[in-house]
Amino acid sequence: MKKIAVFTSGGDSPGMNACVRAVVRTAIYRELEVYGIYRGYEGMIDGEIKRLHSHSVSNIVQRGGTILKSARSMDFKTPEGRKKAYDNLMAHGIEGLVAIGGDGTFTGAKLFYEEYGVPTIGCPGTIDNDLFGTDYTIGFDTAVNTALEAIDKIRDTAAAHDRIFFIEVMGRDAGFIAVESGIGGGAEFVMVPETHTDLDVVVKSLKNLRKTKSSSIIVVAEGDDAGNAQTIMEKVKTKLNDPTKDFKVTTLGHIQRGGNPTARDRVLASRCGMAAVEGLIAGHQFHMTGVINQQVVYTTFEDCIGKTKALIEDHLKLMKILSI
Amino acid sequence: MKKIAVFTSGGDSPGMNACVRAVVRTAIYRELEVYGIYRGYEGMIDGEIKRLHSHSVSNIVQRGGTILKSARSMDFKTPEGRKKAYDNLMAHGIEGLVAIGGDGTFTGAKLFYEEYGVPTIGCPGTIDNDLFGTDYTIGFDTAVNTALEAIDKIRDTAAAHDRIFFIEVMGRDAGFIAVESGIGGGAEFVMVPETHTDLDVVVKSLKNLRKTKSSSIIVVAEGDDAGNAQTIMEKVKTKLNDPTKDFKVTTLGHIQRGGNPTARDRVLASRCGMAAVEGLIAGHQFHMTGVINQQVVYTTFEDCIGKTKALIEDHLKLMKILSI
Amino acid sequence: MKKIAVFTSGGDSPGMNACVRAVVRTAIYRELEVYGIYRGYEGMIDGEIKRLHSHSVSNIVQRGGTILKSARSMDFKTPEGRKKAYDNLMAHGIEGLVAIGGDGTFTGAKLFYEEYGVPTIGCPGTIDNDLFGTDYTIGFDTAVNTALEAIDKIRDTAAAHDRIFFIEVMGRDAGFIAVESGIGGGAEFVMVPETHTDLDVVVKSLKNLRKTKSSSIIVVAEGDDAGNAQTIMEKVKTKLNDPTKDFKVTTLGHIQRGGNPTARDRVLASRCGMAAVEGLIAGHQFHMTGVINQQVVYTTFEDCIGKTKALIEDHLKLMKILSI
Amino acid sequence: MKKIAVFTSGGDSPGMNACVRAVVRTAIYRELEVYGIYRGYEGMIDGEIKRLHSHSVSNIVQRGGTILKSARSMDFKTPEGRKKAYDNLMAHGIEGLVAIGGDGTFTGAKLFYEEYGVPTIGCPGTIDNDLFGTDYTIGFDTAVNTALEAIDKIRDTAAAHDRIFFIEVMGRDAGFIAVESGIGGGAEFVMVPETHTDLDVVVKSLKNLRKTKSSSIIVVAEGDDAGNAQTIMEKVKTKLNDPTKDFKVTTLGHIQRGGNPTARDRVLASRCGMAAVEGLIAGHQFHMTGVINQQVVYTTFEDCIGKTKALIEDHLKLMKILSI
Repeated sequence: MKKIAVFTSGGDSPGMNACVRAVVRTAIYRELEVYGIYRGYEGMIDGEIKRLHSHSVSNIVQRGGTILKSARSMDFKTPEGRKKAYDNLMAHGIEGLVAIGGDGTFTGAKLFYEEYGVPTIGCPGTIDNDLFGTDYTIGFDTAVNTALEAIDKIRDTAAAHDRIFFIEVMGRDAGFIAVESGIGGGAEFVMVPETHTDLDVVVKSLKNLRKTKSSSIIVVAEGDDAGNAQTIMEKVKTKLNDPTKDFKVTTLGHIQRGGNPTARDRVLASRCGMAAVEGLIAGHQFHMTGVINQQVVYTTFEDCIGKTKALIEDHLKLMKILSI
Repeated sequence: MKKIAVFTSGGDSPGMNACVRAVVRTAIYRELEVYGIYRGYEGMIDGEIKRLHSHSVSNIVQRGGTILKSARSMDFKTPEGRKKAYDNLMAHGIEGLVAIGGDGTFTGAKLFYEEYGVPTIGCPGTIDNDLFGTDYTIGFDTAVNTALEAIDKIRDTAAAHDRIFFIEVMGRDAGFIAVESGIGGGAEFVMVPETHTDLDVVVKSLKNLRKTKSSSIIVVAEGDDAGNAQTIMEKVKTKLNDPTKDFKVTTLGHIQRGGNPTARDRVLASRCGMAAVEGLIAGHQFHMTGVINQQVVYTTFEDCIGKTKALIEDHLKLMKILSI
Repeated sequence: MKKIAVFTSGGDSPGMNACVRAVVRTAIYRELEVYGIYRGYEGMIDGEIKRLHSHSVSNIVQRGGTILKSARSMDFKTPEGRKKAYDNLMAHGIEGLVAIGGDGTFTGAKLFYEEYGVPTIGCPGTIDNDLFGTDYTIGFDTAVNTALEAIDKIRDTAAAHDRIFFIEVMGRDAGFIAVESGIGGGAEFVMVPETHTDLDVVVKSLKNLRKTKSSSIIVVAEGDDAGNAQTIMEKVKTKLNDPTKDFKVTTLGHIQRGGNPTARDRVLASRCGMAAVEGLIAGHQFHMTGVINQQVVYTTFEDCIGKTKALIEDHLKLMKILSI
Repeated sequence: MKKIAVFTSGGDSPGMNACVRAVVRTAIYRELEVYGIYRGYEGMIDGEIKRLHSHSVSNIVQRGGTILKSARSMDFKTPEGRKKAYDNLMAHGIEGLVAIGGDGTFTGAKLFYEEYGVPTIGCPGTIDNDLFGTDYTIGFDTAVNTALEAIDKIRDTAAAHDRIFFIEVMGRDAGFIAVESGIGGGAEFVMVPETHTDLDVVVKSLKNLRKTKSSSIIVVAEGDDAGNAQTIMEKVKTKLNDPTKDFKVTTLGHIQRGGNPTARDRVLASRCGMAAVEGLIAGHQFHMTGVINQQVVYTTFEDCIGKTKALIEDHLKLMKILSI
């Protein structure tokens, strides 16, 4: 293997730049030429491919976003799009790919590999932490800390006014951000897609809680089965039917995607980036790198996409005990 | 004067605790007894009044929210409510008040003073900065920095995806937060209640901008005349009518009220708190303290409420030049 | 078991409060009475023991330091001191202890258990991460992120002036903080106690590096075998003997101990606190709780103190590759 | 005037990039060509001069350091150096300069103007706030907040251990950072170059304080007349002569120079940058821009360098009252 390329795809996550940097520098260290593909699969189709050097990735380890930019590509879902992409790679002599992204990115990578056989290693870049094959994904720790800092701020004003706050965090299919920011933020309840949310139980508990507590924080993952934060607030308000209570909703939104990555995300990203290049060299072809129990592991795209990572049991237990 | 009381009222703002601390310690230094009234006018009516000591305000200078809690009181708008409040003050022998809050707080304070003649000094505690009689209000600097950090994070993801982001910040009647976070955050447009927003101009500029810029940040004060961020986004999207553009809305909400106050807010709060007590001792009776041109000034409640503080001309000019 | 007590001891670390909160609330949930012992073993000897309730630990999950205060006790090293401590526990009917701290704390706990047989569970509260029996210690993640933010700030000024910066971080016997903040901060070198530091190699590399790089960051663990940051800087300066180079030293010091804990530290602390109480109930007697591979584990004090946790091999490798 | 150039010089400060951006964009808006001179006077002598465009300053408003780099130049102190610098400016057709820096920068600018008559406008870029002609300097607010956050962290650990902490902040000749971070951080004492520090008074107060307070924070400006923090700690320790007290010193150092600028610094920097270009166009020739009482003002270099800005009286008074 002489030439490889790296790209970021799907929703961006903090730490993607640290990962790109590790890919580039490991490649150079291992005497490979390395290229950056801009805007993910879209740029692969459009031929936005540039040689990267060691200095190309200087001073980016601490930056959110991705210098390679990201996009969601419709064209790559068509055989014509993928053909163009393949032709572009060949034109540059690229023999291996490093794909940084999540679910959708690896679904595309799997299909592309099956059709054209270009060895591809994935790095788990998504704030949602919903990828099988790694304890944590790149960007998750930063997103949780961003959510947590927001919850800390809101608790100041919640406590000052004796209010009930519903805070919506990201997580369409997975409750990892909600659970960790909820435990860390001292929330009374956390509502996640993985478990059924019974609002009657919540209302009953809120009534009991309110005797001893003056304010409450309820963290809602956007994909909860009871609805989004606004909907849930309205239902709870109606059920509780207590005009003395003051309800507020805050949807954290895209601030959770940005920001300087935390130490944990930078180190994880660096490790995955290094492992991706070494994986390519060692002959892995359709695998995602990850860190499980402090060790680098390679998991097939099939398993990463197909298998589900469960919430940690202890965390669910903690939620119940700590809010008393 | 032997005994005074302090309370916080209306929306809380970061720095209120630093202000309470300064009131308490200055009062003790000047050999006054000092009481805390909890939950604003509501607690004045309900008699939630406690003696405060130097140690009561230890280790609070850095905390958001207010240890005295805050509330909006309906009862205080009735003569019966105010009568009860007065009786409670008399029962404790309280001869002077320090009221920390905004517009609504001082409207109440003015009325109460006119009816019962209890000398009252206000401290400008509101994130909106919309009070005449002070260059800045307590909490404004923290709110602007919170908004700015959120904009910084969103720019990471906006740039990664070439998106147009509409970010709604607080400011129902005043655009101070929007203007300063917009200039600081490198926004392309800032929309504020003080000036008419012409969306056709915005759309035209966006079309031009998009040739050279890949992403745009538009900061919207919640009280803008063209609507809130969601409404404005939809109008702009329709007018722009370009399916390749990706639009997103983030409403920062209550995170802007909380958080550890900045240095500027702590120092301003401390100064106003000290000046409030010294003002009471010096015989001021219906004035708000503020800092103008680095000097403490006392302005009548009438002027604080009635007069309007204008945006800084230079800031509006900066907006136009810096987004090119 | 009816009554237990909790205390913090040794150097404080961010997350200790979250741990205390989890101990208290889990104990109450499991229908135990719970007491707080103030100032560690010192307060155990002096009888500073108070009943704690659910509200005693409200609003502390996010605070650095420890509400139970900490101290290093000379008296507890004497048989007389330990006798007094035991008598005080008995006077309160305390049947089990939760000790939050590090090496020294558990050395004391082990001795005390051997003499008096009071079941004691430890929680790993130290920023140094140098305890066998847990992947991470409580406070480590916060300390690393504090160090990292400092490095990020220093890189701004290092790059502006083309300087070589030596940054000393905590770690008398262990390089965990140095390694993770060094990788995360994009440092050129990291010097740690676990490996021999050859300054000639560093100087040689610096000469090569300087051709392409304009500034350098070198992270030094305080216990490195080549000396502290100041000493190392002077040696390197002499060896490099290049008057055009500008050298600076910053010792981060105690800021690494404080601050609001990160999400990771709050969650870990909560988990360890819950596991400590459940461990006591389950009959563990001289064990530290920890989280290894996402699972709670109990390790004997003997192993925690006696065995050494190694640095992660991959991290050392990363250091070499990423600085090219 | 057709062509101008901008440079940063002396110690860097957060906000310099925001200022450069404002200079560049205002120049372009006013239809001037604008050049960047790298590494201050050093680069002016060496001819490191490049054309800057609107996009050259994209995405830098939030970054610490300076993209133009900075240096202290010995050569510019010689007539030969200045001659070379002038020749380089002429070779590029540069008719006006914007100099961003402090005292030393403007001393050089004044001399250069007197010799060669190139119109030069200064922008106050220094964290020390020690320039006459502006209420605040660019970078000061960020430095104070950095110091304050460090003090907040240290208070966590100081309170946990009942310690006396001496924290040294920057300020060789001026106590502005010490005073504002000290008031904001709830310090017991602040020692600054502007006033005589009597350690006997401090020791006496510490003795009294210690009856009611368990920990103390003392903020020391590096240029205090009683010595640096380490020296002062040792003197106080000897005088206090109380073996039960635990003393610690932390020197914040260069972290105060870096970091993302605060909103206040970005807005001030933007305003000064705009005013500098407009000042050049309007015919100002040897003036520094500043903001006093919310208005842009132009002050001659002679006054900026020669006159002394005093500490705010109220702040000194606050220090005394708030630490009780």
